[in-house]
Amino acid sequence: MSAIPEEFLSAQAHVDEQAIQPFPNSHKIYVIGSRPDIQVPMREIKLSDTQHYNRQEKNLSLTVYDTSGPYTDPEVQINIRKGLPEIRRIWIEERADTEQLSGFSSEYGRQRLADTQLDRLRFPNLRLPHQAQRGRNVTQMHYARQGVITPEMEFIAIRENQRLEQYRDQLTQQHPGQSFGASLPLQITPEFVRSEVARGRAIIPANINHTELEPMIIGRNFLVKINANIGNSAITSNIAEEIDKMTWAIRWGADTVMDLSTGKNIHETREWIIRNSPVPIGTVPIYQALEKVGGKAEELNWEIFCDTLIEQAEQGVDYFTIHAGVRLAYVPLTANRLTGIVSRGGSIMAKWCLAHHKESFLYTHFEEICEIMKAYDISFSLGDGLRPGSLADANDAAQFAELETLGELTQIAWKHDVQTMIEGPGHVPMHLIKENMDKQLACCGEAPFYTLGPLTTDIAPGYDHITSGIGAALIGWYGTAMLCYVTPKEHLGLPNKKDVKEGIITYKIAAHAADLAKGYPGAQIRDNAMSKARFEFRWEDQFNIGLDPDRAREYHDETLPKESAKTAHFCSMCGPQFCSMKISQDVREYAREKGIENSTALTQGMAEKAEEFRQQGAKIYHEA
Amino acid sequence: MSAIPEEFLSAQAHVDEQAIQPFPNSHKIYVIGSRPDIQVPMREIKLSDTQHYNRQEKNLSLTVYDTSGPYTDPEVQINIRKGLPEIRRIWIEERADTEQLSGFSSEYGRQRLADTQLDRLRFPNLRLPHQAQRGRNVTQMHYARQGVITPEMEFIAIRENQRLEQYRDQLTQQHPGQSFGASLPLQITPEFVRSEVARGRAIIPANINHTELEPMIIGRNFLVKINANIGNSAITSNIAEEIDKMTWAIRWGADTVMDLSTGKNIHETREWIIRNSPVPIGTVPIYQALEKVGGKAEELNWEIFCDTLIEQAEQGVDYFTIHAGVRLAYVPLTANRLTGIVSRGGSIMAKWCLAHHKESFLYTHFEEICEIMKAYDISFSLGDGLRPGSLADANDAAQFAELETLGELTQIAWKHDVQTMIEGPGHVPMHLIKENMDKQLACCGEAPFYTLGPLTTDIAPGYDHITSGIGAALIGWYGTAMLCYVTPKEHLGLPNKKDVKEGIITYKIAAHAADLAKGYPGAQIRDNAMSKARFEFRWEDQFNIGLDPDRAREYHDETLPKESAKTAHFCSMCGPQFCSMKISQDVREYAREKGIENSTALTQGMAEKAEEFRQQGAKIYHEA
Repeated sequence: MSAIPEEFLSAQAHVDEQAIQPFPNSHKIYVIGSRPDIQVPMREIKLSDTQHYNRQEKNLSLTVYDTSGPYTDPEVQINIRKGLPEIRRIWIEERADTEQLSGFSSEYGRQRLADTQLDRLRFPNLRLPHQAQRGRNVTQMHYARQGVITPEMEFIAIRENQRLEQYRDQLTQQHPGQSFGASLPLQITPEFVRSEVARGRAIIPANINHTELEPMIIGRNFLVKINANIGNSAITSNIAEEIDKMTWAIRWGADTVMDLSTGKNIHETREWIIRNSPVPIGTVPIYQALEKVGGKAEELNWEIFCDTLIEQAEQGVDYFTIHAGVRLAYVPLTANRLTGIVSRGGSIMAKWCLAHHKESFLYTHFEEICEIMKAYDISFSLGDGLRPGSLADANDAAQFAELETLGELTQIAWKHDVQTMIEGPGHVPMHLIKENMDKQLACCGEAPFYTLGPLTTDIAPGYDHITSGIGAALIGWYGTAMLCYVTPKEHLGLPNKKDVKEGIITYKIAAHAADLAKGYPGAQIRDNAMSKARFEFRWEDQFNIGLDPDRAREYHDETLPKESAKTAHFCSMCGPQFCSMKISQDVREYAREKGIENSTALTQGMAEKAEEFRQQGAKIYHEA
Repeated sequence: MSAIPEEFLSAQAHVDEQAIQPFPNSHKIYVIGSRPDIQVPMREIKLSDTQHYNRQEKNLSLTVYDTSGPYTDPEVQINIRKGLPEIRRIWIEERADTEQLSGFSSEYGRQRLADTQLDRLRFPNLRLPHQAQRGRNVTQMHYARQGVITPEMEFIAIRENQRLEQYRDQLTQQHPGQSFGASLPLQITPEFVRSEVARGRAIIPANINHTELEPMIIGRNFLVKINANIGNSAITSNIAEEIDKMTWAIRWGADTVMDLSTGKNIHETREWIIRNSPVPIGTVPIYQALEKVGGKAEELNWEIFCDTLIEQAEQGVDYFTIHAGVRLAYVPLTANRLTGIVSRGGSIMAKWCLAHHKESFLYTHFEEICEIMKAYDISFSLGDGLRPGSLADANDAAQFAELETLGELTQIAWKHDVQTMIEGPGHVPMHLIKENMDKQLACCGEAPFYTLGPLTTDIAPGYDHITSGIGAALIGWYGTAMLCYVTPKEHLGLPNKKDVKEGIITYKIAAHAADLAKGYPGAQIRDNAMSKARFEFRWEDQFNIGLDPDRAREYHDETLPKESAKTAHFCSMCGPQFCSMKISQDVREYAREKGIENSTALTQGMAEKAEEFRQQGAKIYHEA
């Protein structure tokens, strides 16, 4: 049985020390919105001055998106037995459309609470849940469609801009993107956030019971987001480990975290996670429902599933993966596949459909599910239960039949003003990825796409963060809003902390490469800052600007451990004699000597010169 | 000073034990060509039988491309003091167009040989060099244009097919590719190899002095290849380490190896490497030339450079990176850049041009270089000395001006029947990658493109194998013939063995993802074999089929170490209860019960059923 370590039980409970260290030369800042309680966290990286040959200048500090929550703020006292500060409570209360319940609505939630044997595992600071008042709809989509800009929306607008106004003049130093029909504004306004949510092109996963949440948005016209999966299984892992994985995942950049637990004490584990999570938490409720019927898919029914939804809703889960597109009719379409059905949720529902020879109860009860979703503002993540588990099965009839149904369900969800995103594959060779994106956009009315990878080859177990990172970068560029990470352990085992970090950094790379390719305004600022630091041999800045300062420093120091090497105008690759950066400097000096000072003159002067030389030079061989 | 360890001096000299272990459940096979001395090495992976529910069947063993040379053949006695077997000697002699020289032609080569202090570092089995007979041209391109199919070409045809004839019926289980104008035949014939080399669309780097070489080909209509860089620097590394890196690199799949040494004893190190390398060796001769003038670029001249070319030619270097496109006129075009000139070769030549204010001697002497190339059959790798070193500098005037010049030089090389490939960037965001490929194809008459990455973002030092693996997969798909690997140490330090392996596996993934996307015939066989093994829980086969069996096994065993878990019909991700693969099996059983036995009936039956259900199901909501 899982257990939580002793320190959880003491008042000094604390999280993994590694996860809460401030980043080097960085500090947490909060950008204040239109009201003092809209405090949007960001990380500011201080850069050193340029002292490069004759040039001396200050370098503007860099602002980067920060998912790590209060953990990296040394001013905040973390107490995981208490949970994080409830920054959204007042916003929700002000809307006056919810009510606090006198107890938990779900049968199962009540049972667990009554079980005193669970007391030692239980989160100590349990709160009573909130729900929409009868007849009210408390989704961000509902507000958006009424023209209301919520504090959550304003928070997000500030967050997505990353103080772009400070770097405005750097925008010209970015390549125009190729966005495949996205509508990226030059600056994200609260009104833009509202309009995107209203039309369903973006979602704000934000359960009214997850008051600790720092709001974020998932949509193709915003920064590409990434999700990290955690969760115990029947085989391994306990509550403390899962919390550590969550804090570790958000430290490195997970925008949302899915708790995919299938082992013991799922309910209690989830409570600990949500109360301590500043990022949206997603789950796959069918996993827990299955546990409740002893793992026998055929014994599942709507009542048990519905009770599970409410149980999780009242804990504060922000989005539910629901495999309502796995219809009875589609199941036989998978019989011919090389790898059948590989989604757990999909296979559970397929088995249920076969056993009863009935249409999926998720599909037939979909409107009832919508009623639950809108009473807590839980977003749908419509699961791709028939996604391909191998290249061979990519883009087949089963997969696309389900996608069409997900499109149909999206329309129903939207009828209820329930926020919705769509899950996508899986295993897909590069040249078939775009078809997935295009079909999803067409079928699902531009509801955000949320894909797992896709893996672009099956032959590299142990490296599937990379096989899938390639696909993730591509599909992100094409328009996917959130990328579900894959760790090196995929297909082999459960990821540990090292794997979680490796998966996250890989996906931060994929997401950022996608932002750059789409031409997200300001996306290139960090790249340019890194490149300038490189050119000027500001080693410390290079480490600090990167996604993983620890590894960058460690790798550098393996070859050149001395402190003096951190200011040296060369590196271990070439040594002092061969430094190409140094030679480039000579080129600049030369240009300066020739009196070509400003960049227009430079470009013009160069072009003339080049043309002249080209004509002369070309002769050498054209006459020969 | 560098040193080689004592064991090199003994008769029992041996290479790194790790590099010569046979792969698990694999053995080396040789496919014999039209003559008994054409013996093409491949690796055969034996697979276990299917025993999955009611199904029992044999699984055909898998044949994979094998770059590891005799090192993984337990029948071959490796003696690095002697060098590898000279499999090409007889082919070269039969052509009767070369002659053995009585000594080394280069001044520097003779000096080094005369220096007895170097005896202890020297490769002990030195041979006298060969050269084309006066007036003869010994390039594979020359033969190809005369209509001659060389043993090298036949060797390559067999090699590229990977016994495809045994798997012919599996070709229908592969997605048609999207090849952007490539001309991939269903089967590679020796005549196809010849025709591709004749028209310059592929090269066979094969110096007549590298008789140990197992021939391979670089061209967009063949499997995408990868290169690994090794080489000492002024800072670190010695001869033994470099040989270990080479054997390690080819074990994991490096198709060619570049020796980029810039430290001590470059000449002697290179001799050891070539004599023991079954893959083509490339170099950047300007690095050594610069060493000869004490690191002062301005003191370089044509004579020293020419002597260096001949020195290396007579050792057997298969391709030279020559930065002849860095013309004086283009240098000022870089002054405005964020990161200037980052290519070492490029910056050396830029400095020379500036210092003398003269056109590059590589450019002005290009035809003389061609004369040397064709006397030994060395291939050009026309260097991109002005490649961007940051996203900001991607696709700029300097880069593309040079590319145009490389196209001009390609025509000159081809006039001499000298094989030529073109080097490419660098740092390029995803959406600007295709322009590089398209421009290269247009400027350089489809000469093979050989790119470094490109890196798709600058913000992840420590993970540049991944930032660049994404770009490499893309540009490989678009038509690049060879991908130069990037290791996790890029921008930070010199790669060790671990980094070399990580870089190579990442690039094998990128190259294979590209082959799949292009639709290279048979590319999907290995993926399908993996997927089938996955579905049938043949764990050992999954490990063995993968690019890195050691890591796959290690990762699996971290969670489920027991031997019994290797035959278990579940894994640590879900545990026995939740296994989706098991549920998929139920779907198959169900289909069988319903009497849908063969795949046509299955597809048809399913489609009807799906349509029927879809119509019924759709009603649920459309009426609502």
